[in-house]
Amino acid sequence: MKAVRLHEYDKRPVVEEVPEPEVSGPLDVLVEIGGAGLCRTDLHIVEGQWAEKSGVALPYTIGHENAGWVRAVGTAVSTVAPGDTVILHPLATCGLCRACRAGDDVHCANSRFPGIDSDGGMAELLLTNARSVVKLDPSLRPADVAALADAGLTAYHAVRKSVPMLYPGTQVVVIGAGGLGHIGIQCLAAMVPSEVIVVDRSQAALDLAKGYGAAHTVVADGTHVDAVMDLTGGEGAHIVFDFVGEKGTEAEGVAMLRRAGSYFVIGYGGHIDIPTIDIISTEINVIGNLVGSYNDLSELMTLAAQGKVSLHTKTYPLDAVNEAMDDLDNGRLRGRGILVPERS
Amino acid sequence: MKAVRLHEYDKRPVVEEVPEPEVSGPLDVLVEIGGAGLCRTDLHIVEGQWAEKSGVALPYTIGHENAGWVRAVGTAVSTVAPGDTVILHPLATCGLCRACRAGDDVHCANSRFPGIDSDGGMAELLLTNARSVVKLDPSLRPADVAALADAGLTAYHAVRKSVPMLYPGTQVVVIGAGGLGHIGIQCLAAMVPSEVIVVDRSQAALDLAKGYGAAHTVVADGTHVDAVMDLTGGEGAHIVFDFVGEKGTEAEGVAMLRRAGSYFVIGYGGHIDIPTIDIISTEINVIGNLVGSYNDLSELMTLAAQGKVSLHTKTYPLDAVNEAMDDLDNGRLRGRGILVPERS
Amino acid sequence: MKAVRLHEYDKRPVVEEVPEPEVSGPLDVLVEIGGAGLCRTDLHIVEGQWAEKSGVALPYTIGHENAGWVRAVGTAVSTVAPGDTVILHPLATCGLCRACRAGDDVHCANSRFPGIDSDGGMAELLLTNARSVVKLDPSLRPADVAALADAGLTAYHAVRKSVPMLYPGTQVVVIGAGGLGHIGIQCLAAMVPSEVIVVDRSQAALDLAKGYGAAHTVVADGTHVDAVMDLTGGEGAHIVFDFVGEKGTEAEGVAMLRRAGSYFVIGYGGHIDIPTIDIISTEINVIGNLVGSYNDLSELMTLAAQGKVSLHTKTYPLDAVNEAMDDLDNGRLRGRGILVPERS
Amino acid sequence: MKAVRLHEYDKRPVVEEVPEPEVSGPLDVLVEIGGAGLCRTDLHIVEGQWAEKSGVALPYTIGHENAGWVRAVGTAVSTVAPGDTVILHPLATCGLCRACRAGDDVHCANSRFPGIDSDGGMAELLLTNARSVVKLDPSLRPADVAALADAGLTAYHAVRKSVPMLYPGTQVVVIGAGGLGHIGIQCLAAMVPSEVIVVDRSQAALDLAKGYGAAHTVVADGTHVDAVMDLTGGEGAHIVFDFVGEKGTEAEGVAMLRRAGSYFVIGYGGHIDIPTIDIISTEINVIGNLVGSYNDLSELMTLAAQGKVSLHTKTYPLDAVNEAMDDLDNGRLRGRGILVPERS
Repeated sequence: MKAVRLHEYDKRPVVEEVPEPEVSGPLDVLVEIGGAGLCRTDLHIVEGQWAEKSGVALPYTIGHENAGWVRAVGTAVSTVAPGDTVILHPLATCGLCRACRAGDDVHCANSRFPGIDSDGGMAELLLTNARSVVKLDPSLRPADVAALADAGLTAYHAVRKSVPMLYPGTQVVVIGAGGLGHIGIQCLAAMVPSEVIVVDRSQAALDLAKGYGAAHTVVADGTHVDAVMDLTGGEGAHIVFDFVGEKGTEAEGVAMLRRAGSYFVIGYGGHIDIPTIDIISTEINVIGNLVGSYNDLSELMTLAAQGKVSLHTKTYPLDAVNEAMDDLDNGRLRGRGILVPERS
Repeated sequence: MKAVRLHEYDKRPVVEEVPEPEVSGPLDVLVEIGGAGLCRTDLHIVEGQWAEKSGVALPYTIGHENAGWVRAVGTAVSTVAPGDTVILHPLATCGLCRACRAGDDVHCANSRFPGIDSDGGMAELLLTNARSVVKLDPSLRPADVAALADAGLTAYHAVRKSVPMLYPGTQVVVIGAGGLGHIGIQCLAAMVPSEVIVVDRSQAALDLAKGYGAAHTVVADGTHVDAVMDLTGGEGAHIVFDFVGEKGTEAEGVAMLRRAGSYFVIGYGGHIDIPTIDIISTEINVIGNLVGSYNDLSELMTLAAQGKVSLHTKTYPLDAVNEAMDDLDNGRLRGRGILVPERS
Repeated sequence: MKAVRLHEYDKRPVVEEVPEPEVSGPLDVLVEIGGAGLCRTDLHIVEGQWAEKSGVALPYTIGHENAGWVRAVGTAVSTVAPGDTVILHPLATCGLCRACRAGDDVHCANSRFPGIDSDGGMAELLLTNARSVVKLDPSLRPADVAALADAGLTAYHAVRKSVPMLYPGTQVVVIGAGGLGHIGIQCLAAMVPSEVIVVDRSQAALDLAKGYGAAHTVVADGTHVDAVMDLTGGEGAHIVFDFVGEKGTEAEGVAMLRRAGSYFVIGYGGHIDIPTIDIISTEINVIGNLVGSYNDLSELMTLAAQGKVSLHTKTYPLDAVNEAMDDLDNGRLRGRGILVPERS
Repeated sequence: MKAVRLHEYDKRPVVEEVPEPEVSGPLDVLVEIGGAGLCRTDLHIVEGQWAEKSGVALPYTIGHENAGWVRAVGTAVSTVAPGDTVILHPLATCGLCRACRAGDDVHCANSRFPGIDSDGGMAELLLTNARSVVKLDPSLRPADVAALADAGLTAYHAVRKSVPMLYPGTQVVVIGAGGLGHIGIQCLAAMVPSEVIVVDRSQAALDLAKGYGAAHTVVADGTHVDAVMDLTGGEGAHIVFDFVGEKGTEAEGVAMLRRAGSYFVIGYGGHIDIPTIDIISTEINVIGNLVGSYNDLSELMTLAAQGKVSLHTKTYPLDAVNEAMDDLDNGRLRGRGILVPERS
């Protein structure tokens, strides 16, 4: 089968023939890929930024946002059958450690991360296990949802954690209406009754946010902290979701909080630096957010099937992986790039 | 009556005669002070550090950790009667704003803070309102519990917030076994089944902590982060309570966390400075903690009446306020200093 | 002023002149009534069903769902001012007991219930206190929202309690799409991402429910438990909200639950009767629901101001109270009857 | 190996030689039994009460409360190794369904129940899977803890669910201080700061309860509801744990509740029968409780290793199973009977 293989860091991957993987273990699931999302992390992998962290042996197949159809399953698999449409949770988890047993499988003590530390989904087939596959409503097409598997799931997870804190009359701020942020806005609209204020540098992104249910939009032009304070009656927001997490949004996000508010860190790259007296005198919180759990992904797929969350995508054949990477790298890609193998 | 009055910043307060306050409003409560805690904040008030923040007009009476007996009540007061033993919540709150209505009265939009921004309790009498007074079990003596009103309440509040996260098998770290910390350790022993690890520079404080239920004690000698990691099987603690919040404990506390753990900020003076990637990759939280609510204080008094929380104290007559301040300032005060008016 | 006064049980109330109430206490609020909801409880009061329970002395003014404009306030009232539009929480609570201090003011140990145990709002003026009045968005008209003060608040409260249990993919059942039920459906649509199944005997009520966001409607014709099981894939619903609570819905509601599901009792009149083995073997819960808190009412008014919750009403002048009661008693009243005093 | 086999309903099981089970699947775990608890359910199984419900084919090996040492493991087992001391969760769950993925594995859609619907642990060896075994602290002896696997786990689970509702000053009632109840009392003492009131018919059981930390004991002599109301200042208890669930405790337990209190059903056999008006007017809850999750069992074993929870037991060799059953049936067994295979 064809696969997008990385042979050397700092050199682009190549599309080549590799042997087809096969089901051997009782919980194995073999998936025909219908869409593999391309994201900035893939560029970083090629640059070698993940080499030490992942410890992966080259060559290997990249692609960590995957969806498709089940081709074959191991003897103990009861939850999916050949022909089922599925999306893959980014982690293949053990199911045995305390975290897995608590529904917090993202913190699994023994997980694999296909596409990062083992063969991923930019290929015709991907071998994974039953704990990774979420069965989809037949109305969903893999290429349309694949990019929700990681980026979308991270946004969903942060919003999901905020649900118990948000009631009618609360106000939340979303910083960054890009890839993750615009999923976050849709999740907020679907799940909480709060008023959503969106902050971004791009007017186009803000216009899009309005369509997804934002009550107010604010251009990040240097006056945006003041603008948010005005929109919140001088008190600040109950929760700030920071999908950027660098270049000043860290301090600005905290400055937008009301007393007892929570600053949700989702994007990264910068630092939070807050005097402890400010943390205690207003009793604010800083909440870390990683990708969501398997059940989170299942819930996000319910929202997708209900038409409440959707993505802008542009599809490329597997052979065009480097064209897609160029488009992403040069800012020519609107929406998410999705690699779609040709079905023979 | 006698009262400890501050006439000028940077000059010690004087004990002088002032008119007795009287009940006038329907919710007023007049309290004969049985004990007023002296704390480091009082030294800072004298130094003028709170001048701008409090906006108080000099001269005024200091003392913000107060307990005593009810002498008289307004016409609408139903919860206490003359003769009742009471402790005073540090804030006199409005009872009408959203925060008060939600049980979160510490964030009251219209509160007063006697002893900080209005006349306090280092006096024979203090006029407060019905929302501030917690009726005590008759077995409790005001001088024994007064210092729990603010410092103790802060420690209790932080521990109380952690209860839903702590189950048998969890491990928590307490940094700083001083005034607040040793109350925190007692509250943990009374309320959660976790294993408590205490870190402090002083072996004497650690020995005391052992008696309060600490499972392990660690001298803060530079190897203490490693020691905590060893005690937690290399994974870190579920929650770190930092009662210091400065001089390096901020970074050390975060370094002691396990994945998905929470760092509770209680002490202050320093900064937290964490790369956002570290926050999201381990999904940790930074939780601010202010003083507790009225109900928190009531619960803490239940623990005190059950003998589960106690304080070391040294009492001084009102006239000896400056001796007490000297003892505190010079590190000669073991336990908390309590000013006790002579009853005529 | 004019007021609707009950002089004798089993005799209809009369409209007569009474002295105007006046502000005397510091927390008093005098409200010009703009709308007073009429509900079935008022008929029961006239019949004497509440005589023993309320202990009210006749004659008195009925009316327990009230909204209007502030005319005057006591000296200590900071949250509303003359001219403000307000709705009145049904209870005037003490603000001092543990329940009030915990935000759970419905369980206040010392509350009054105007219209039930003291003079109510079917009058030109009503004297209440600052803890009862919720300031409204100026766009809301008292006559439009008055009936949300009690019936609507009960429905809101039940839905609000369910929020943390409901995520995308969950299914809930609403039994009874009448007065309370159709508010409940609107609250569910505004606050949770669940699929809502509505069961009622009346096709007209079900058609209305569809318009409020119900995903499925089921006629209660004897096959409705089976119909719900079919709609839930044979597993049952996560939560059943029973707005009827009598005539068989108690057993049917429980039969519609999935494992670990919760049956919310809101309507009343019947019995729940369940073998304990059925409760433990499926680990189901029965959750009681009383009227909501002050903050609940404030949140519901936010939804009303956002246009997410609305009521069908028919207005009557005060003088027509008995015509309104006749209409209600004889089933001629579509929507809620609202008594509106003429403004002089 | 020797095993206790049931060949025919209504005839006592026999001890006979059967082939040793062997590890074949990758997640299999073969356990040398060190203790198998005998409980009343085993008598009911022999009587045929479970025949229809379990659908098990005779003959088979009974025993559903099992602990021992790992003898061999499948290729994919990472959490235990040969030689480890383990206790077995009563259910062997799938790890793939929504409930398992949410940490709520008791509601697994595909579980097996060894000793009930397949071969159990009254034998020298038991074959189970990696999701069932909890690794124990080496200080624990299988025969001492085996009976915590089901009965004890049920008590722990109920108490664990109550933790977020219980704070200093709350009062709880335990009805029934027998097998489950006395574990529940120990769990309450270890995990919550509430005052525990224990109600039982037997003074001996109450004396035992005092030693486990009960603040008050009440003989169930017909005046016990009044006695509980007196002990709770006329208000009732915050939570009532009913470990009996029949013969009148259902109504008595509900009558002991305060406003907004919760009645936890654990024992069974009777009915709850409550007017819906009583449920809503006091806003009480009825909470079902099944056995605990895998993580619950792990937590309970932590309490056992800390010496906070212990059981009275009497051991019998496997060959004496019918003697043990006679002792249980005739009330001659104090504490729990544990069958212990002879090690060859």
